[in-house]
Amino acid sequence: MDAVIRSNTMGEFDLIAHYFTRPVQRAALGVGDDCALLVPTPGMQLAVSSDMLVEGRHFFANTNPERLGHKALAVNLSDLAACGARPLACTLALSLPCIDAAWLDPFARGLLALADAHGCELIGGDTTQGPLNICITVLGEVPAGQALLRSGARVGDDIYASGTLGDARLALEALQGRITLAAPALASARQRLEAPTPRVALGQALRAIARSAIDVSDGLLGDLGHILRASGVGACVDISKTINLIAVSAEDIKATGQFGTELLPQCTLAGGDDYELLFTAAPTQRSAVAAAAQASNTPVARIGQIEAAPGLRLINAHGQQVVQRYASFDHFA
Amino acid sequence: MDAVIRSNTMGEFDLIAHYFTRPVQRAALGVGDDCALLVPTPGMQLAVSSDMLVEGRHFFANTNPERLGHKALAVNLSDLAACGARPLACTLALSLPCIDAAWLDPFARGLLALADAHGCELIGGDTTQGPLNICITVLGEVPAGQALLRSGARVGDDIYASGTLGDARLALEALQGRITLAAPALASARQRLEAPTPRVALGQALRAIARSAIDVSDGLLGDLGHILRASGVGACVDISKTINLIAVSAEDIKATGQFGTELLPQCTLAGGDDYELLFTAAPTQRSAVAAAAQASNTPVARIGQIEAAPGLRLINAHGQQVVQRYASFDHFA
Repeated sequence: MDAVIRSNTMGEFDLIAHYFTRPVQRAALGVGDDCALLVPTPGMQLAVSSDMLVEGRHFFANTNPERLGHKALAVNLSDLAACGARPLACTLALSLPCIDAAWLDPFARGLLALADAHGCELIGGDTTQGPLNICITVLGEVPAGQALLRSGARVGDDIYASGTLGDARLALEALQGRITLAAPALASARQRLEAPTPRVALGQALRAIARSAIDVSDGLLGDLGHILRASGVGACVDISKTINLIAVSAEDIKATGQFGTELLPQCTLAGGDDYELLFTAAPTQRSAVAAAAQASNTPVARIGQIEAAPGLRLINAHGQQVVQRYASFDHFA
Repeated sequence: MDAVIRSNTMGEFDLIAHYFTRPVQRAALGVGDDCALLVPTPGMQLAVSSDMLVEGRHFFANTNPERLGHKALAVNLSDLAACGARPLACTLALSLPCIDAAWLDPFARGLLALADAHGCELIGGDTTQGPLNICITVLGEVPAGQALLRSGARVGDDIYASGTLGDARLALEALQGRITLAAPALASARQRLEAPTPRVALGQALRAIARSAIDVSDGLLGDLGHILRASGVGACVDISKTINLIAVSAEDIKATGQFGTELLPQCTLAGGDDYELLFTAAPTQRSAVAAAAQASNTPVARIGQIEAAPGLRLINAHGQQVVQRYASFDHFA
C-alpha cells in the first residue's frame, strides 16, 4: 500500500489515506506496511501518550476542521511537552460517518501543519466508518532519567504556569450562550479553545530545571492536585496572580446571573482545555526558569509555592486565605 | 494518579481506570503521568501499529465483552506478528456510552489476559464518554533490518498461510442468518471470529527465513495482493490447497441460494478477519519454515508460488487456471 493510513474496511475508506500521505522523513519505515518502524536514539527513553477526541464531548460538530486537526494533535503534543520529551512520530486512527473531502482536506492540513512544525512524523494509523472519533498516539523521546514527572515536586518549590489560562473556558461559555464577549475577544479566546498551543519547546527547555510538571487540560487546580498527590505535598496559590493569566479583559465580557465576579477566577483556576504547562522548580532556579521561558519564547508566571501541609490553599494579594471552592468543570457537561 | 488510564473527562469516567490498573512491569514509567516511558533495547527497531474497532462495523453490539477485549488487542498484535516484532507495550483509548461494570470487567479481563500471554504491557491510554470505540496502539521491537515487510517477495518464492482460513467469515454468515451451521461447528467458527489468535511466535520465528509477510485481515487474496504490489511480482495460488485451510467441515454447513458450492472457496480466499500470517520464502527454506512452524506450534501450509508475471492466478489441483473472481467482502457491509 502506498498510503500512510491503512484502512481496515474495504473500499472507499481506503481513499482517506491520500489525505495523510507524506514522504517518509525520519522513520525507518513510515507507511503502508503492517507496522511502522522507528529507530530510537541510543540513551533516550521513549515517551508515549494516547488521547481520544469525540464529537459532542471534546468538540462541537461544527468546529472548523482545520482547527480540529490541529487540536487533536496539540493535546497529544502537550502530554509530551509536560514530560520534557521531543516529539518523534504519531499515529492517527479516525472513525468518520462518511467521506467528506470538504472536511478531510482541512482536517489533514491542520494536523499535518502542526506535525511539521514539531517534527512529529505521521507514521501510520487506521480509518474506518463510524461516529466521528479521532484517536492519536504520540511518540517522543527524552534523555534517560530526565523526564519531567508529576511526582517530583518538593516543599519550597515555586509553582509556575505558562502562557494564558482561562480563555478557552471563556470561549466555551460564550459559544454556549451563557456570556457575551466582544467580537475581537471572542475570536482570540476561541482560538485558544479550538487551536491550543502545545508548549513543546518550553517542556524540553525545563529538563533539569523543573522538578515536576503536568499539562493543564482539566483546569489549573485539578491538575495541580495531581502533582500534589503524586509528590505527597501541599501548595499555596496566589489568585491575585492567576487572575492575570487570562488574556481576555474583563471589559470585553458581559456575564449574567450566577457568573459575574466569579467568572474570571473560575475560568483561570478551573476552566480546562488550556494545554499550558504547570510546573514546579526550586527558588534557586528562578533565573534558569526565566531563561528557559525566554529561549522557548513562552511566558511563564510564578503563582505559588509547594508546602509541606497537605492540600491546596488559595490566598489573595494580602496573603489572606480565600475559601471559595473552584471545581473543575466537565468539558461539555 | 494511581491509574493506568488517564481520563480526559472529569468524574465517574476516572473510575474506569481501575479496571485496567496493573503493577508496572517492564516500562520505566507505566502509569499515571502525562506519558508512559519505555526503554528501547539497543540495536532494536521500534514497530508501531494502531487499530480502531467500532461497534456495528467490526463487532456486534452483543459480542461477548471478554472476547472483544481479546480481539481488540489481538488484531494489533497480529500486525506486530506480521513484521516479526516482539510485543512490548500497548495503549488503550476507549470511548463508552456509559460505565457498565458488567461489560468493563470482562472486557478488561479478556484484553489483559492476552496482553499477559504476550508480555505486552498496558502502559497508558484514555477513556471518555461517547459511542463505543476501542483504539489500541501496540509497540514492539525487532532487530534492526530484520522486520518482515510486504515488499520482500521474490520470483520463485513459496507462498504460505498459517493456521486456518475462512472460519471467521463462516461464523459471520451464520450469525447473520445466511447459512446454518451445526452447533459445535458454529461454536468453533465463532471463536475464530470473536477471539482470533495472533501468530506472534510464528512471526518472530520467521525472521531471516521469510522474505515477505502480511497478516490476513481482509481476506487471503486481497492481502496477498498487497504483497504483490509492494514487491512488484505476481503469484499463482492453488485453491485445492486453500480449500483445506477451513476448519469447519462441509457436512456441518447448510447453505442456501447464491452460496452453495462457492461458499467455502469464498470464505477461505476472501473471508476476512482471519488474522493468520501470509508469507513467502525461498524454496531452499522449506525445512526452515517447517522448523519455525513447529517451534511456534503453528501449522503452516504451502499454497502457491510467486511468479514474475504480474497479477494473481488461481489454479485447481490439476494445474488448470480457475476464472472465478473472489472479491474481499466488506466486514459488515
